[in-house]
Amino acid sequence: MNGATEPHMNRLLILARRAAEYRALVESALPTLEIVSTQSPDEAVAIARDCDLGFGEPLLLARVLRDLNTLRWLQSTWAGVEPLLDPSLRRDYALTSACGVFGPLMTEYVIGYLLAHERRILEKHASQQLAHWDPRPPGTLRGKCLGLLGVGSIGSALARTAKHFGMRVHGYSRSSGACPDVDVYFHGRDRLADFAADLDYLVCVMPNTSETRGLVGRTLLAALPPRAVFVNPGRGSVVDEQALAEALHAGRLAGAVLDVFVDEPLPADHPFWRTPNLLITAHTAALSVPRDIAPLFLDNYDRWSRGQPLRCRVDFDRGY
Amino acid sequence: MNGATEPHMNRLLILARRAAEYRALVESALPTLEIVSTQSPDEAVAIARDCDLGFGEPLLLARVLRDLNTLRWLQSTWAGVEPLLDPSLRRDYALTSACGVFGPLMTEYVIGYLLAHERRILEKHASQQLAHWDPRPPGTLRGKCLGLLGVGSIGSALARTAKHFGMRVHGYSRSSGACPDVDVYFHGRDRLADFAADLDYLVCVMPNTSETRGLVGRTLLAALPPRAVFVNPGRGSVVDEQALAEALHAGRLAGAVLDVFVDEPLPADHPFWRTPNLLITAHTAALSVPRDIAPLFLDNYDRWSRGQPLRCRVDFDRGY
Repeated sequence: MNGATEPHMNRLLILARRAAEYRALVESALPTLEIVSTQSPDEAVAIARDCDLGFGEPLLLARVLRDLNTLRWLQSTWAGVEPLLDPSLRRDYALTSACGVFGPLMTEYVIGYLLAHERRILEKHASQQLAHWDPRPPGTLRGKCLGLLGVGSIGSALARTAKHFGMRVHGYSRSSGACPDVDVYFHGRDRLADFAADLDYLVCVMPNTSETRGLVGRTLLAALPPRAVFVNPGRGSVVDEQALAEALHAGRLAGAVLDVFVDEPLPADHPFWRTPNLLITAHTAALSVPRDIAPLFLDNYDRWSRGQPLRCRVDFDRGY
Repeated sequence: MNGATEPHMNRLLILARRAAEYRALVESALPTLEIVSTQSPDEAVAIARDCDLGFGEPLLLARVLRDLNTLRWLQSTWAGVEPLLDPSLRRDYALTSACGVFGPLMTEYVIGYLLAHERRILEKHASQQLAHWDPRPPGTLRGKCLGLLGVGSIGSALARTAKHFGMRVHGYSRSSGACPDVDVYFHGRDRLADFAADLDYLVCVMPNTSETRGLVGRTLLAALPPRAVFVNPGRGSVVDEQALAEALHAGRLAGAVLDVFVDEPLPADHPFWRTPNLLITAHTAALSVPRDIAPLFLDNYDRWSRGQPLRCRVDFDRGY
């Protein structure tokens, strides 16, 4: 798993819908690297048989993985790499995800909707449509409590901004990480209700794994105070959608902001389209932008070339 | 202008709509201070003739000022003290404003609307009403340029948060102050167009003075790029409302978010109710909350008692 001994053997496949943009960015930094690039898995199979490096979208790469006989390292353009974790697929190569890139965008998404809730931005706009001068006082983030389901690189970025706005931050995670902006950590499903009890906002930034599936279900939702708002820019599989719709219909939760769903695009007959106090943002919280992702590939390529450990290496068994 | 020589003579008038809350907060910190409190200027005239200290709302205090014969210091609960600056009123006392208090709330207001613009929160909500999965990509604050009209305590708080989100910050002010978060300063009306030329957001946090009146007029608006959004949580008098409505109708400006107006409440027949890309928030950007303002009075009372200079002392000639 180290390219240092054969530095001239590297040949890179770029397989992504925005392959041309990624190629231009990589070429300008590494003009001597041999590159083949395409948007099409079928074309990739034809041109990339002897590539040892890959860079692209997990959903496309999963379709060509068995044909890349010489593959040794693959950099995903996405944070989530689920399509490459299917047990039927090979795992004899180094897989790295796009981590540490989405923190700022995810933070803008979450804080944007938290402030929209506190400042009643949608209600004020509705009043304005009626030419009604609406003096209802806004709330403030200061002193409110943010609960993070997951304290990885995105959770840590969010925690930092939450502290900037004077919020308290509680974290639910496997371990008490090194995030200095989390005031209190909670571990294990038996602490889930304690974690939820005092929250104004619950934000899910967990990966999709067997441990996180359905975690935001009846138990957790029942433990949240009725003033709480749930925000999910993470993975749809973490949510029990029926339980969430019921909680919102019953007014046991003040609101929810969802970017991800079990089925996407959200089917036209899905109950969420008619659920009150629910905002839907169509999987746009943090889009992969080549300008942000290419530097991560280039940094890892540099590490690869020098035989150093790669950043954001995926543990196939853990799932992220 | 110093109470130190007669510390036992202090008698405080509290005159505000939330007088009871202010009184409770002051009493709990200063149980021996003699206090009279009321919501009514008429009652104040009857009970407060021998008060040497005042604490309350400028609009109410202006109506009793001539009757407070022994007044020596007055703490405003508002940031703006215009009602007390009328040339017909006396100026033989120390006037202090509520400064340094509104920075966090104003910042939540401005950043909330900036993020709502970048994340298309209103458009996404409109799509949702039609059960339309809306994948339009959001923008980001990162790299955008914020222009501050006024770099006082509110402007500085806002600049700090803008830098937190990776924005560039330009400041227009009398002097190059000590705000480390402003990247470039511009001074004087002849630099106004240069200041405006590169902005994504123009935010006005200036006081109402003869120098600032109408500053956001045709010249400044014409110099802004069409992508720019104007946000005014400051003073309505700073804006030429007709020029702003014209710029928005003509699409020469991407949007405006206004909290303050020349006439408030905004009259039912005001053109702003029918101006496109304009959001109206009814003077709620940063409401005076007793919990935030009382500590400022208490700190200044401590300074007053010890003969030290007061914080946020108003210069009657300068107007703030």
